[in-house]
Amino acid sequence: MSKQIGRQTITFPSKPTITASACMVGKRESAGPLGHTFDYASDDTTFGEKTWEKSEARMQKDTLQYLCNKSKLTLENIDLICAGDLLDQCVGSSFGLRESSLPFLGLYGACSTMAEGLLVASMAVDGQYAQNAVAMTSSHFCTAERQYRMPLEYGGQRLPTAQWTVTGAGGCVISAQTAENLPRISQALIGKIVDCGITDAGHMGGAMAPAAYESIIAFWQDTDTKPSDYDLILTGDLGIVGKSILEDLLKTDGYDLGDRLQDCGAMIYDINTQDVHAGGSGCGCSAVVLCGHVLERMRAKVWKKILFCGTGALLSPLSVMQGESIPGICHIVCIEV
Amino acid sequence: MSKQIGRQTITFPSKPTITASACMVGKRESAGPLGHTFDYASDDTTFGEKTWEKSEARMQKDTLQYLCNKSKLTLENIDLICAGDLLDQCVGSSFGLRESSLPFLGLYGACSTMAEGLLVASMAVDGQYAQNAVAMTSSHFCTAERQYRMPLEYGGQRLPTAQWTVTGAGGCVISAQTAENLPRISQALIGKIVDCGITDAGHMGGAMAPAAYESIIAFWQDTDTKPSDYDLILTGDLGIVGKSILEDLLKTDGYDLGDRLQDCGAMIYDINTQDVHAGGSGCGCSAVVLCGHVLERMRAKVWKKILFCGTGALLSPLSVMQGESIPGICHIVCIEV
Repeated sequence: MSKQIGRQTITFPSKPTITASACMVGKRESAGPLGHTFDYASDDTTFGEKTWEKSEARMQKDTLQYLCNKSKLTLENIDLICAGDLLDQCVGSSFGLRESSLPFLGLYGACSTMAEGLLVASMAVDGQYAQNAVAMTSSHFCTAERQYRMPLEYGGQRLPTAQWTVTGAGGCVISAQTAENLPRISQALIGKIVDCGITDAGHMGGAMAPAAYESIIAFWQDTDTKPSDYDLILTGDLGIVGKSILEDLLKTDGYDLGDRLQDCGAMIYDINTQDVHAGGSGCGCSAVVLCGHVLERMRAKVWKKILFCGTGALLSPLSVMQGESIPGICHIVCIEV
Repeated sequence: MSKQIGRQTITFPSKPTITASACMVGKRESAGPLGHTFDYASDDTTFGEKTWEKSEARMQKDTLQYLCNKSKLTLENIDLICAGDLLDQCVGSSFGLRESSLPFLGLYGACSTMAEGLLVASMAVDGQYAQNAVAMTSSHFCTAERQYRMPLEYGGQRLPTAQWTVTGAGGCVISAQTAENLPRISQALIGKIVDCGITDAGHMGGAMAPAAYESIIAFWQDTDTKPSDYDLILTGDLGIVGKSILEDLLKTDGYDLGDRLQDCGAMIYDINTQDVHAGGSGCGCSAVVLCGHVLERMRAKVWKKILFCGTGALLSPLSVMQGESIPGICHIVCIEV
């Protein structure tokens, strides 16, 4: 029987279980309002490594170890890892996970990678191609700044719409084994590329908001549900400016979500005191907010049904230099407990 | 019932059908021994675009159009596209496919992307999450040279072990609909990252050969098959040097595959006359050889059962500069007719 609902949405009848989640962050993230929800926070953003890229890879390696500890699985019990990151050629994942000897599917979804990974891992588990699959991603402020923007030493000015790349890695174990009181993934929407012509790489939230809007509306239509069916609709990393654009877009359709709509980029830092301009971004942003705070609240049944809407900006520094606009994408997973 | 066989191999009981394949290339590829097997060859490597990156994206866009024409599907009938490429942040795929409005899963598997795409698309179709899914990838000599090696204008010397990045894009439609005499995907192996410590980015075949060796041996073990069960064991783009290393590795286990082992990188150019050193490489290499020559021969039943072993080197220019070795990966799909 087809597991497609409408154009973009798929259903997972077995509802794969998120048996464990783990995340680690840097100093600025640990000083933010969610600081107490991360498994590990380092004061040293090198994580003991000699280059920022090795530091980012190290976070994925260590997060995988946390995941094994928390899920009581050994690497031999994990059948698949779906991972990616923002670095050129996704070296955060391939170097971070190369010693794991796990069957590996590399993903590129920019900051939507955590949602894309959960989606692919759920497809693998629900389809019985894996018993236990891991979805993982990371980002690092220092690798992202020098790759996308300026050398750190340059001290370039940031626009008010700019976001601060989260230093962090997060991962989940998605499992065929069911257990009481654990969050489960019931449905997902595979995002389309949406490009509204924004060319300002310092305004990524604005570039991604239309993709979030289209995916969220499509998901409600495909599943014949409405905002009040969900305790939380959580976007990836639109930041405060992008979130406000999404709110405006939803209002044109008559939807006023109020506090039901939250954004990981707007949650992870104290916007007023932490000098991060429009909030957090990066693959690690939605990953660590989901794997810490959000799944903790779901296990506590504060939230029982949420939409996790991972947003990504599919640009490259070169595409910006060539005058291209910024395509966005938004993958959604529905998580229930 | 589990669709896992052994540690890394999965089976697709419905055997998704490759209902169409399409590919296009540049001038050098069309002058090679497989020149007659491509759907379109351009004398103009710009493909009418203003930058090499836009040229590469254009190839993906046009290949998708060829696929629609050949499969008699409209874009509305395609439920999913799985695509990626070598460019930083995979912009060949995201810009090439942004107007398609298709549900999009971005992949990063370096030169193994065609195999990874077939694997994920087959999982989606066999698992009933999609009726028709497309797997696509591309590479372009000029984008790869300036990203990975030297500005083209510099005219740098190439090592004898270096390979020539194929200018080309290839794609397949994987479909739940069965049809007589068309190739079908019956099994796949999800590769592990294998790093044997090679640090020479001019010797990528050598870096990838151990991954190919480990995946091929694992596939035979998982499926309890032997080389003679296959008409062809086709590696992605080891080139003539990497292929020879793989042959040596297989011989240590007592396997002498002779002509049964072929490599897309060794097939696409005339090594003696085309000045490509160790042969072809790039995501497009295995994609266009598979989507043209190989699937043509399978439809003609010259080959009835093959292993398509996509090989990828998971390095980045920065990882090489930081002294890192080159991790390889090899995903396998078994195609039968």
